[in-house]
Amino acid sequence: MDDHSVSRFGHVELEDFPDDVRERIAPIAEKSGFVPNVFRTLALRPRELRAFLDYHDALMDPGGDAGPRAADEPDDGLSKAERELIVVATSAANNCTYCVVAHGAILRIRTKDPEIADKVAANPYAVELSDRERTIVDLALQIATESATLTDADLDRAREAGLTDDEIWDIGAITALFAMSNRMAHLTAMQPNPEFYLMGRK
Amino acid sequence: MDDHSVSRFGHVELEDFPDDVRERIAPIAEKSGFVPNVFRTLALRPRELRAFLDYHDALMDPGGDAGPRAADEPDDGLSKAERELIVVATSAANNCTYCVVAHGAILRIRTKDPEIADKVAANPYAVELSDRERTIVDLALQIATESATLTDADLDRAREAGLTDDEIWDIGAITALFAMSNRMAHLTAMQPNPEFYLMGRK
Amino acid sequence: MDDHSVSRFGHVELEDFPDDVRERIAPIAEKSGFVPNVFRTLALRPRELRAFLDYHDALMDPGGDAGPRAADEPDDGLSKAERELIVVATSAANNCTYCVVAHGAILRIRTKDPEIADKVAANPYAVELSDRERTIVDLALQIATESATLTDADLDRAREAGLTDDEIWDIGAITALFAMSNRMAHLTAMQPNPEFYLMGRK
Amino acid sequence: MDDHSVSRFGHVELEDFPDDVRERIAPIAEKSGFVPNVFRTLALRPRELRAFLDYHDALMDPGGDAGPRAADEPDDGLSKAERELIVVATSAANNCTYCVVAHGAILRIRTKDPEIADKVAANPYAVELSDRERTIVDLALQIATESATLTDADLDRAREAGLTDDEIWDIGAITALFAMSNRMAHLTAMQPNPEFYLMGRK
Amino acid sequence: MDDHSVSRFGHVELEDFPDDVRERIAPIAEKSGFVPNVFRTLALRPRELRAFLDYHDALMDPGGDAGPRAADEPDDGLSKAERELIVVATSAANNCTYCVVAHGAILRIRTKDPEIADKVAANPYAVELSDRERTIVDLALQIATESATLTDADLDRAREAGLTDDEIWDIGAITALFAMSNRMAHLTAMQPNPEFYLMGRK
Amino acid sequence: MDDHSVSRFGHVELEDFPDDVRERIAPIAEKSGFVPNVFRTLALRPRELRAFLDYHDALMDPGGDAGPRAADEPDDGLSKAERELIVVATSAANNCTYCVVAHGAILRIRTKDPEIADKVAANPYAVELSDRERTIVDLALQIATESATLTDADLDRAREAGLTDDEIWDIGAITALFAMSNRMAHLTAMQPNPEFYLMGRK
Repeated sequence: MDDHSVSRFGHVELEDFPDDVRERIAPIAEKSGFVPNVFRTLALRPRELRAFLDYHDALMDPGGDAGPRAADEPDDGLSKAERELIVVATSAANNCTYCVVAHGAILRIRTKDPEIADKVAANPYAVELSDRERTIVDLALQIATESATLTDADLDRAREAGLTDDEIWDIGAITALFAMSNRMAHLTAMQPNPEFYLMGRK
Repeated sequence: MDDHSVSRFGHVELEDFPDDVRERIAPIAEKSGFVPNVFRTLALRPRELRAFLDYHDALMDPGGDAGPRAADEPDDGLSKAERELIVVATSAANNCTYCVVAHGAILRIRTKDPEIADKVAANPYAVELSDRERTIVDLALQIATESATLTDADLDRAREAGLTDDEIWDIGAITALFAMSNRMAHLTAMQPNPEFYLMGRK
Repeated sequence: MDDHSVSRFGHVELEDFPDDVRERIAPIAEKSGFVPNVFRTLALRPRELRAFLDYHDALMDPGGDAGPRAADEPDDGLSKAERELIVVATSAANNCTYCVVAHGAILRIRTKDPEIADKVAANPYAVELSDRERTIVDLALQIATESATLTDADLDRAREAGLTDDEIWDIGAITALFAMSNRMAHLTAMQPNPEFYLMGRK
Repeated sequence: MDDHSVSRFGHVELEDFPDDVRERIAPIAEKSGFVPNVFRTLALRPRELRAFLDYHDALMDPGGDAGPRAADEPDDGLSKAERELIVVATSAANNCTYCVVAHGAILRIRTKDPEIADKVAANPYAVELSDRERTIVDLALQIATESATLTDADLDRAREAGLTDDEIWDIGAITALFAMSNRMAHLTAMQPNPEFYLMGRK
Repeated sequence: MDDHSVSRFGHVELEDFPDDVRERIAPIAEKSGFVPNVFRTLALRPRELRAFLDYHDALMDPGGDAGPRAADEPDDGLSKAERELIVVATSAANNCTYCVVAHGAILRIRTKDPEIADKVAANPYAVELSDRERTIVDLALQIATESATLTDADLDRAREAGLTDDEIWDIGAITALFAMSNRMAHLTAMQPNPEFYLMGRK
Repeated sequence: MDDHSVSRFGHVELEDFPDDVRERIAPIAEKSGFVPNVFRTLALRPRELRAFLDYHDALMDPGGDAGPRAADEPDDGLSKAERELIVVATSAANNCTYCVVAHGAILRIRTKDPEIADKVAANPYAVELSDRERTIVDLALQIATESATLTDADLDRAREAGLTDDEIWDIGAITALFAMSNRMAHLTAMQPNPEFYLMGRK
């Protein structure tokens, strides 16, 4: 545990992952050209990494590698860019370096906007957004930082602004998932891979 | 979605759960005599419920129904009572009614102390605990409420108080998992089952 | 001062109270079957205990043992249950174990609702209440935690929700009295009597 | 209740006070040349005013008009100036105009220092004080603003700095009493008498 | 640097100021009868003092000693008393003793109201003000304590209450300037001159 | 004032600046290839811009264009990179987009480290730094966010960590200057020039 370049608890290289997890991460690593450090860190605890991946795919990539949604799960309307916007905004409110840098890169790619991630990260409270995005971010920030105050009135306001109940669940669930991730990144002093800093900037 | 007795998003009854999840929850329900509302609520999104159960078992019941720990996962020393103590303390700091009431009941049972849960819930910051418990709770509260400030010095203090790195990971990971659960309970206005209020009190 | 079972400053047994105070507390002790620890602690300072009892009776039991209200004091409409609701909600916001546990017991008895106290204690900010109760609790929480921001506009909102000026005074005065009690309980590390934990739960 | 010059709930003139209270306040009014508005406001509720006066005298004027301390009450060492210092510091932390202005005047008189009250009021956290005064104020501020965090370790630190347990109780009890008074002043929008602003300034 | 009577970094006497600065401060000193300690402290760094004076004059004394406003600068409507009100309110929110005491004195003189400064200093959040003054102070307090949350909606509210864009700029710029001054006063432990405590009180 | 691309109050183009200011900014614009928006915004108020430039040069570029330091000003040891580190850390704590993005670019250039700015911006509280840098940033953050608590003990700790009094003054003064700048950027909704996002990243 002396190498803190990935996390303060050390890390596991992809070739040493359990087979099922390695097979799941390999295509991601191949596509991006590197193994994101969140996987190399959480691989210290494979059971937790598997649960994290399942949760992540269900919320961030609902139609993705983990297979199509089950028939009994509602389809919903948050775009992938909106999902990343929630992650960057709430991770910024939580001062989580790994998630801000890594998901900031993905947000730049999803939006094709090289400035949006830095703007959201610096000031999620007042960054200029569309009305729909502002409604999404405001609800996410409330759940990230003071969820105990959430009332029916807050949800009604989101509904009046056009969000469906499934979108509201997704906003809350993504915020909740990264409330967890942000704390794991802080616990482990997880370092962003150098590649993330430049992705989507040109 | 008009029945808010379990959550503001409605709920699913056990018989309508997907087979694999029902088979997993049934023994718990049988043993306790009721289906905890967290399962009936999260069953609205089976993929998320499965991931939640996997995460929960890996951290709260490491040798339990989900099978023995994998060979590459370290054994650690947090007792089940200490794990519940972390949940009650951090859920209290987050003002999460469902988790305080439900895990307070489990904490009473695990400790055979009918007063401890109410004391931890009312004031996790200064409730009288053993030195080891206080170290655990202080670290958990920091990660629950201001994880961005966590430094090597904080972890060193925990180590000097006798905690191993695996215990520290567990404290952080349990706190992180319930940072997520607390927010899901707030999002859904999840109601504790009536049975929880009385368990372990006599 | 070595016995911290009641408070960290020790305590006085009922038989050692000054006569006038003993005569005042005895009927309460007889009725409930025990001497609440707040009296055994504050009896270390009889003058302060007398003033506390007078203040308490004037606000929590206006027609009670301390005699009927004086002719020049307005009658008001807060029920005894509403008064206890204010105590539990603001003591929870202040993380006061003694007051949450002891007055939680009284609230259960007054409301005949075995769940209400734990719900209010866990999350006073969003516990589901009637509109009148929510108005009362919101005003009480503002006075408990940020009274400097109170303006005529806040009081007008309470009046529009149906509260009279006497009720508003009572809400503020009860909150103020327990701002004091909560701090005395924290100062003395006052322990709730074991009996309180079970009262009104069946 | 249309005259808000004393409080937003109106007030009572000294001649209309109940006899026992008037006889108690009259000598104070005679000596200072005016009836402090706290009495004219709380006289709207005589039972509460009596309790407040009893509490106040027990803590702020232990050997005063209310007679000598009872034999079973410990003598203690806080000077009257130190008691006022606690009131001004904690009332400033609570942003209570009435108590800062009125007790600031008394503090100037007790200390014969025309600057101390404004300095304590502007910044109780770092105003330059003697070591003993700083210990007193730090403990009082903790109890005023975050009493739930108070532990044996905090009290031990105060003891090591030379405070007795009776002094510690007094510090906590005075802070608690003014936690109440500050909230009553905010509730009633109590106005300081004009005379207070100039007292002790020459 | 052993004399802390003016600041913890020492100070410079007027006769030792650089000529250009001395000539600028001399008339102020002559008029008030003393050299305000802010100048004696900042004179330790003449370049910074010059910039501070230029900024101060541009915002607090736009038509004053520094000469008339340039033709391309908009005239605006904040009175000198309103400018001082902003300084006292925001310096109070920042707990800055020097600025509260010194500018409180100037506010008393500008308003000819001997009570206003102490009231604003004790509780800027709810001190009774005219509607225009309350709008000004609310905007200033938001910029002083949580400027990151400022949105177009906040400015629109100020405009609807009758403020022009130039007045809004001035409110923000004065608040910003004293965000700087307050921190310099805290850094240097700057002491108010004794004369300020009494000015404008009779 | 309808063009919000630079600020919500509009802006002035370099060719329309007053001559003296244009001559001062032109070399900066030429060197970097664009006119930083802070100048185009503050040029709406030339007197304020001049004072800002003077203050900025005195603290951020003490030996720069504004000429050598005066003989009576102490030389000090903060490197230019350390000065920018203070700006980025405190501007991040204040959630100021303009200053984080613009000075983050300069910090990358001064340190030749393409990651440091994003790391400091995301979490100034726990970013890994050298001991000297951590001492500098901790002191700066205290002055940025809670300067009222600053005591001699805090400064002594900084001195024991090796900082001179001149360096401490510079840390405080730079933090104070950007407490002002951050608020001006929030007031005006100042937008970073697109060039800043990419500078120093390769």
